[in-house]
Parts: sequence; C-alpha cells; structure tokens
Amino acid sequence: MVTSNNKYSYNDLRINAERFKKQFDAISKIGKTDDGGVHRPAFSEAHGEVRRCFLNMAVESGLETRADGAGNHSAILQSKHPKAKTLIMGSHLDSVPYGGRFDGALGVLAALEVLQTVKENDIDLNVHLEAMDFTDEEGRFVGLMGSQALTGTLHPEILDHPGEDIHLFLQSLKKNGLSSDSILSAKREPGSIASYLEIHIEQGRRLEKANIPIGIVTGIVGIWSFKIQFQGRADHAGTTAMDQRMDAGLGASAFTLAVREMVVEKFPGGVVTVGNMQFEPGAFNVVPETVTVSIEFRNDNVQSLNEMRDAVFQLASDEANRFGLSVKIEPVEQSIPLHMNPVLMKSIGNACDVLGLDSLELPSGAGHDAQVMAQVCPSGMIFIPSVGGYSHSSREFSKWEDCVNGANVQLQTILHLAELN
Amino acid sequence: MVTSNNKYSYNDLRINAERFKKQFDAISKIGKTDDGGVHRPAFSEAHGEVRRCFLNMAVESGLETRADGAGNHSAILQSKHPKAKTLIMGSHLDSVPYGGRFDGALGVLAALEVLQTVKENDIDLNVHLEAMDFTDEEGRFVGLMGSQALTGTLHPEILDHPGEDIHLFLQSLKKNGLSSDSILSAKREPGSIASYLEIHIEQGRRLEKANIPIGIVTGIVGIWSFKIQFQGRADHAGTTAMDQRMDAGLGASAFTLAVREMVVEKFPGGVVTVGNMQFEPGAFNVVPETVTVSIEFRNDNVQSLNEMRDAVFQLASDEANRFGLSVKIEPVEQSIPLHMNPVLMKSIGNACDVLGLDSLELPSGAGHDAQVMAQVCPSGMIFIPSVGGYSHSSREFSKWEDCVNGANVQLQTILHLAELN
Repeated sequence: MVTSNNKYSYNDLRINAERFKKQFDAISKIGKTDDGGVHRPAFSEAHGEVRRCFLNMAVESGLETRADGAGNHSAILQSKHPKAKTLIMGSHLDSVPYGGRFDGALGVLAALEVLQTVKENDIDLNVHLEAMDFTDEEGRFVGLMGSQALTGTLHPEILDHPGEDIHLFLQSLKKNGLSSDSILSAKREPGSIASYLEIHIEQGRRLEKANIPIGIVTGIVGIWSFKIQFQGRADHAGTTAMDQRMDAGLGASAFTLAVREMVVEKFPGGVVTVGNMQFEPGAFNVVPETVTVSIEFRNDNVQSLNEMRDAVFQLASDEANRFGLSVKIEPVEQSIPLHMNPVLMKSIGNACDVLGLDSLELPSGAGHDAQVMAQVCPSGMIFIPSVGGYSHSSREFSKWEDCVNGANVQLQTILHLAELN
Repeated sequence: MVTSNNKYSYNDLRINAERFKKQFDAISKIGKTDDGGVHRPAFSEAHGEVRRCFLNMAVESGLETRADGAGNHSAILQSKHPKAKTLIMGSHLDSVPYGGRFDGALGVLAALEVLQTVKENDIDLNVHLEAMDFTDEEGRFVGLMGSQALTGTLHPEILDHPGEDIHLFLQSLKKNGLSSDSILSAKREPGSIASYLEIHIEQGRRLEKANIPIGIVTGIVGIWSFKIQFQGRADHAGTTAMDQRMDAGLGASAFTLAVREMVVEKFPGGVVTVGNMQFEPGAFNVVPETVTVSIEFRNDNVQSLNEMRDAVFQLASDEANRFGLSVKIEPVEQSIPLHMNPVLMKSIGNACDVLGLDSLELPSGAGHDAQVMAQVCPSGMIFIPSVGGYSHSSREFSKWEDCVNGANVQLQTILHLAELN
C-alpha cells in the first residue's frame, strides 16, 4: 500500500529519537510526582492537561487532531486515497494512581512519532494513520472504556456501575463535554479500521532476563477472578479452646499457601494472586467467622484457565473441610484470552530483522486496549523491556534506547505491512 | 461477722428460685432480639431501660439503691454495724452488640437475689451487701469502665480515646448526667470494700465436658495483643512471575497457620487468635505489599506469656524471611494475669460442699470486672456451665438449674465468709 514515488528502500528509515525524547519528557512532567512517577487518573486535571499537550504536539507537527464522543484523543495523518482504511496505533495517557511514566504514555508518544516521521518523509500510504490516546484504560471508572466504545463492544449498563462513585463519573463526563450517549456514539464501523498496533512496556522481567530488546506479543491472557468465602463460627477468643474452634482465618490462610504451590507446580505458564482477605468480625478477641478471599488467576489459553478454576475450587473445598468450614464461591471477572494477529506478529518480526534486533514471542500478563481492538481488527503488540519488571509504581523504568528501538520497530512494521498490500 | 440472734444453721438457707427466674426473665426481655439474645450496648436506650428495671426491683424489695458518678447502679442492704465495710457482688447489664442474655445479667440478678434472701430472712451481717451493675463492662466506649472508676484504677486519658466516636461518648455521658469528672469521682476508699464476688457463665466448655456444675475461678488470664505487619512489594499480578514476588499475604498466611500449631503443641494452657488481617493495597490485581495481622494470646501466668511472646515474634520473623519479607511488630494490649483470692476460693469450695455440688478450679479466659476489683480487695468468681460454650451470641445458654446452683453457692459463700470473721 506504499504509493510514494520515491523508490528508495524504507528499511533505512528511522524515527527522530531526539524529538521523541523531547516530547516524551514534556509529557512526563504533567502530573509528575516527587519520586519520578506520574499521577494522572482518568479525567483528573493532570489527565486533561496531558491530553491537551498531546494534541498541541500533533498540531505543531501539522497533523490533524480529533476527540471523539468517548473522549479518545488522536492525531491523524490522512492518506490521499479516498477509500483508505485507518491503521490505528496507540495506547493511553492516563495512569494508575501514583503510577509510572512509561505505562501507556510510551505507546501514545511512539505512535505520534511514527506519524511525524512518515509525514516529514512525505510517504503516502494507502491507509490513514491515527495515533490514539484511549480514554480510561486503567479503569478509574470503566476500564478500557475508550477502546470498548470505539469498537462498539461496551455494554451500556457498565456505564451505570463505574469503579468510583457514579456521581463523580457523571460530573467528570459533563466537565469534559461527554455523556453516556456520546460515549456509545463513538463506535466506528469495524470495516473502517485496517489494523491496530500498540507499543507497551512489558511490566515483567522476561525480556530483561533474556537480554532481548523486543517482545512480540502472542496474545493477552484471560483473567478469571473470584471471591471465595470461608465460613466458620465466631467464638470468644479467650474462652474457646483451640480444638473447639471453626476459625475461617485458618482455612483462608491454608488455601492461600496451597493455591500458590499448586499453580507453581502444575501451571508454570499461569499466575495466581490472593490480593485481599476480608475478615468478619475482624476483632482481636473474636475467632473469625468468615474470611472472604479475593483471588485471580491468569493464563493464555482457555483450557488451562478451566483446569486452574477446577483446581482452585477443589483446593478451597479441601482446605475448608480440613478446618471444619463451609465455602462459597462467587465469580467476579472472566475475560477470555485473545490471540494477536499472526500476520502482524510476522510483520513485527520482519521489522526486527530489518533493524537487527533480537525478538522474543511472549504473552501479555496484563490487559491492554489491544485485547479490545483485536475483537474487530487484526491487532499486534510490541513489548520493550521493563528494568526490574516494576510497573504501576514510580519505580517503573525502561532504557531510552529500548524505547527508541520499539518506536523504530513500529515504524518498520507499518511500512512492511504496507509492502504486503 | 454474722450477728443474727437466730442460731439456726445457715447451711439450709436457699435463694428463692422462682423470684430469681421471674426477675431474670423480666430483665431478658429488655433489648431482646428476634433470635432470643439481647442487644444492650452501654448507654443505648435498652441499657438505660434495663438499669431502671433493676433499680425498680431493688426498691420493690425494700432495698436501698444508688447510682454513682460512673453510672454504676446498685442495690444495697445496709448492715446495722456502724463500721461495716461493703461486700460487693455484681457484674454488668450491658451486652456486646447482639449478644446473649446470660453474660453479665446473670451475675447482677444473682447478687440482687442474694440480697433479697438475706433481707427477708432478717440476717444481719457485719458487712453491707451491695449488688452492683457496673458500667460498660463490654467496652463499647471504655471496657471495664465502671469497676475501674470505682477502684480508682482508671487512667483519665483513657476517657479521651473511647472505642467508639468521642462525640457519641460525651453525648451519651451527658444524656445520663455523667461527665469525665463525675466518672473519676466515683472512686471509693479501697479500705471500705470488704471483698468482691461475681457469678458468671463460663463462656467455654470445660465445665460442660467435665459435667461439673460449679467452677471456682483461680485467676483471670493476661491478654497480650500485637499488630504484626508483614511487608513485601506491590507488583502487577499479571506480569510479575510467581518466583519474582514478595507477597506479604504468603508470610501472613504461613504465620497464622504456624502460630496456631505452636501454641497447641507448646502452650496447652494458652490460646492464640489471629482475629484480622488488613491487606494493602487489597486489590485483585496487585500482589499484596503489606498485610497487618491482629494477633492476641492469653495465658494465666506471666512466664508463659513471656515465652509465648518470644515464640510468636520468632515465628513472625521466620515466616517473613521465608517469603523475602520484612516484619514490624507493634504492641496493642498487655494485661497482667490476676489471681483470685485463696480465702474466697476456699469459701466457694466450702459452699459447694454444703450444697453437695462438685466443683472444678479453672482460670477465666475472658476479662471481667473481678480482675479490676482484685487490684483493691479480695475477689472471687463463680462460674456456671455454658451449654456448647457459646457466648457473645444469641446461642449463649445456661440451664436454669445451674443458674440457681450458682446463686446458692454465692449465698452460702458470703455466709461462710461471715462465719470466718
């Protein structure tokens, strides 16, 4: 789909690393925290400011800009071809509370840099290029809201049950000129999107440990979560002999230890986390009557998720029996693992070859807008190494060289994709 | 100290079981819950009503009544001897939220019944008898407040840090004509109290299992409590491999299981309870960074408490190390075990002999006003069996026959004490 008259090889084309750094640093200052992270929850003041900054950068580079009914902000480089579809690249500029400066922002800035590079080299592709900043990826109110709205996969009733207070949500929407109706109106015709590509930090240590600069994401894991309630009997902590107790805390503790052993031994590709326990009544001097365990596990294929669920349920039942407790299980979330598009994976691999960079295929343990986009168009993700694997924290860090490599891989990938057409 | 002219043997004297039952049932209706328990938190409306009912019963029986500056309510049978000291019997009419009808109320009603029996038999002892309903034994605001005020062992600053909201506390005091000053003014001269005696349900199953109707309390256990904080690292639950985590929940869980095993094996006379765990940040998708464990343990001698503390601290450190965590320990409560007076214990034993009742010496695992009174005067406690060991719950129950036995033991005990003088 490349239609430039210049027949030089695009293999030599690189992004402008200096401009990329300057723009990334400018973005990192917005919502900056004392310890070097950023605090930019969706719809916060800092979030509004960082989005305006992004649009200004696009305007200054001569790109078109757009903000849709879901609040998604984008920079656009139009193709001259009247029937061109849109190749979207992007990520998000919001952060978790007191998060890091790379998670999301890197993908948006890398996408903007690719558009700037293509534009200044006067390359006319037969797809429109769009660098997208999706709304509320991190889920302050509705996780992955922007991409769900854009793809038409957002269930309207989800908007009535935001993560934070609904009044704050509605107020935040209003302040930004948005509404439930406008969010749902942001849906695009699926046929209008050529494909989706996202650069993100790995948020783990696999690339770092393997000393490989580029990860080609094979898919995004499914996340299954449950509340498991161990029920015993509240008794006086002073007068009830140890062998007369039905202590819900013992069942919950034994389960927490056992479930970790089980996943490590039987599901080396999966992870399991007990993120919380809620004790009732929760007093020093009362034997715990109920303990509600928040558990989630992840894997990249449905069969393993089913097997993990069965094993988790069996363990909960076994440990409850061991301590004379009953057990109730309530499902919370059940997302299906999604595979990245093989053609895009191959294109990313080819781009790495062109750039002389080693790459590693690996699944993503975290959720991303790419998992939503993958439901309506061919989608791919490029990972770069996270130093120490830290994320959702001010300790989050990636070497700038790796960021530049990622952006160049993205550039070469879209050019390679173009050559396929 | 008996000075009646009637030289018949008091060994045949019994309380009026029918009147006792009628008064106990009347008291049990106040603050009654649907499932047969009572809800009478200190200073609640039901608590005010039950105290008025108690005073009315005393007045109807021709006893004097008194309410002191700490809100303690009492019925009094004056001795004719001008230099008489006061023998106090009592317990409390407040309850834990949604508690049982025996805990506390039994002791107050049994004391009242003993006064009524002594009065109607026209026995003049050389001690005043006082049946006492202590304020806030259960600690809605300040645990054991009434007995601490009466004995002058209440630290004034405790009144500034009540268990519930201070404004509610001050409002509750004012509504009852009380104040911090009046509470502290309730102190009696220690020399004015001859001794203290309390009947209470065991709240455990030792008497029931041994099929013995009367427990002679040897002492009240010391309660030592701590907050133990396991500190790890918050990490992304999807992208952090299992072997890369510093999961505070694992240390807390392993500690909870291990500390129970340790106490069962090494401290058969003690109990240990992990009543709560607080997870931070406590989300499904974040590896827990800190878990704060609320732990208390009880034993009836200081040496064992010291050994338990050392063993608990060692286990916390061991389990923290095992999971790569650090640990911080903060003391919360440290009450010293208190021994009941040997003369009173012997008198209770003699009373059981007179009545042909088997008795068992045992420590109290729960706190009682007797542990406060024991600091200023010879004190004793009589336990009666709790069916199933339930307490602080609507399931709390004692057979009426056992309640009557307890009251008769109390009557015979004070008469026997009198014969000693």
